[in-house]
Amino acid sequence: MKLATAFKYMNKDMQQVEKQIKQVTNTESSMIQSASNHLLSAGGKRIRPIFVLLAAKFGHGQKNQMIDVAVALELIHMASLVHDDVIDRSMVRRGKPTVNKKWNNGTAIYTGDYIFARTLELLKPFKNNRLHTVLSNTIHDLCIGEIEQIRDKFNIQQNEFTYFKRIKRKTALLIASSTQMGAIASGVEPSTERLLKQYGYHIGMSYQIMDDILDFTSTEKDLGKPVGSDLLNGHITLPTLFAMEDPTIFEAVKAYFNEDVHELSIEEVIQTIKQSNAIEQSYNISQRYLQKAFNTLKELPDIEAKNLLEDIAEYLGQRKF
Amino acid sequence: MKLATAFKYMNKDMQQVEKQIKQVTNTESSMIQSASNHLLSAGGKRIRPIFVLLAAKFGHGQKNQMIDVAVALELIHMASLVHDDVIDRSMVRRGKPTVNKKWNNGTAIYTGDYIFARTLELLKPFKNNRLHTVLSNTIHDLCIGEIEQIRDKFNIQQNEFTYFKRIKRKTALLIASSTQMGAIASGVEPSTERLLKQYGYHIGMSYQIMDDILDFTSTEKDLGKPVGSDLLNGHITLPTLFAMEDPTIFEAVKAYFNEDVHELSIEEVIQTIKQSNAIEQSYNISQRYLQKAFNTLKELPDIEAKNLLEDIAEYLGQRKF
Repeated sequence: MKLATAFKYMNKDMQQVEKQIKQVTNTESSMIQSASNHLLSAGGKRIRPIFVLLAAKFGHGQKNQMIDVAVALELIHMASLVHDDVIDRSMVRRGKPTVNKKWNNGTAIYTGDYIFARTLELLKPFKNNRLHTVLSNTIHDLCIGEIEQIRDKFNIQQNEFTYFKRIKRKTALLIASSTQMGAIASGVEPSTERLLKQYGYHIGMSYQIMDDILDFTSTEKDLGKPVGSDLLNGHITLPTLFAMEDPTIFEAVKAYFNEDVHELSIEEVIQTIKQSNAIEQSYNISQRYLQKAFNTLKELPDIEAKNLLEDIAEYLGQRKF
Repeated sequence: MKLATAFKYMNKDMQQVEKQIKQVTNTESSMIQSASNHLLSAGGKRIRPIFVLLAAKFGHGQKNQMIDVAVALELIHMASLVHDDVIDRSMVRRGKPTVNKKWNNGTAIYTGDYIFARTLELLKPFKNNRLHTVLSNTIHDLCIGEIEQIRDKFNIQQNEFTYFKRIKRKTALLIASSTQMGAIASGVEPSTERLLKQYGYHIGMSYQIMDDILDFTSTEKDLGKPVGSDLLNGHITLPTLFAMEDPTIFEAVKAYFNEDVHELSIEEVIQTIKQSNAIEQSYNISQRYLQKAFNTLKELPDIEAKNLLEDIAEYLGQRKF
């Protein structure tokens, strides 16, 4: 598990990140305190902070400033997750009850808002205007991606184009912004910044496709939520899109979305997709994006952080959950 | 209606404000576009922008920057409203269906997030760090106020202290920040800034108490929502707190909150509060805050904006909806 190597190399920085994330939960409101602590301490891979910190190695920024940017990116991610869980009525995340389940929707919505507000506080001292521009554009696109996800929910008439556009906004841009903002904050060369952003974008696309595959192929224990949750919640992802080229699957999904009866139950559809060629097809596309990330890396200056970015890409391509 | 005077005096600026608010709805996502347009064009008094612009008259800022701050304050207010409506499951606001009703909860949550993000964009170019500090502290407190409102919902054991603390965070601080940020952005003297902030705070407290009174005394037509909505939704406001000093009312509210039967129905409780002394008691406290606002104004330099702040205070003290 090569991600551990990256963590070890950045162990001290990541401890700082955790410490700062912990501080966010430090507020007068005991309800927000418990809810945000529950959310933020639930773990997660912290890949966005890692990307910020590694990208920053290509320049010469002040350490504590990089940590602030890293924390900000993780917080935006977490704030969007807690709102997602309200919308999807998700009951479990990473094996623990969601904030909306453990408390209620209201607490979850305001906890998300609160975390957004803390992000602003964190980035306030940065004078670099481009940093703020990238950030607000990212949140802007993130919201649009999320709302497109609602629009497309239970909509059988989708194609790969809508899917790619949606995951770009929903996931890839936030990861691209992580590497880009790390780069901006540490004042790297414009050409290096561009490459780091590109790397983040490709990794982000590959990452989300893998996530959507694992939703079918992983186990409930590893996922921390039921297998096939996406489809059960009406989200059509790449494996389903490929699988629906088979009319029987298409009709079965359509029937499930319309609350009609079909000879093939949705559980059987999930089983079928899991064992079908659609998984491999999706995996190939995920790998193609990963390859693009590797190619982008080749053009970057040879420093240790570059090897780690390579290791992470490799790890993400092989992950099982 | 003296508010019209203020509007007339600032007619051009307010047109700019409206134009900019309109621009916020300008996005690629047709769903966010319609939802935010529905929300932002629903009217409202726009008192926060007016306060920003009038406070700015005490200094010498650039007009277009003041407009940006004014729009930002209105947007934060609107973003918090759209999230409130989800939490309260409100179906109508200002006589129109809410975003959660007309679309769904998800659209409402992300529309709020999107509007927050646009606020960041708007204030990005401002180099003044204090402006950002005031803003993020305000959003921070606003979230805590909102979450306290959830915590206190259907809780019969409350006193005036919890109520005042809650409305301070939920309403008064955002209005205090409007006058303060207008002042900061136009570089007024620190002593004047302090007075303007104080004025905003007192007005905000008075305003929210009036709002809570009108929820009982106004009509469904003027309110744009049913009379007594607060109590029906489990929110205990000042009139109810005073009225509950009568044990019969206390027991009736308690029974309603616990879904028990009581000889006095909640509709009868609302009727009783409406005609009781509790309204006058609350009104007196609202007037006391208003008086404090007038007193604060006396210490401010004599410029035309000061007369308008006085007119607005007078208007808000007499408003019927």
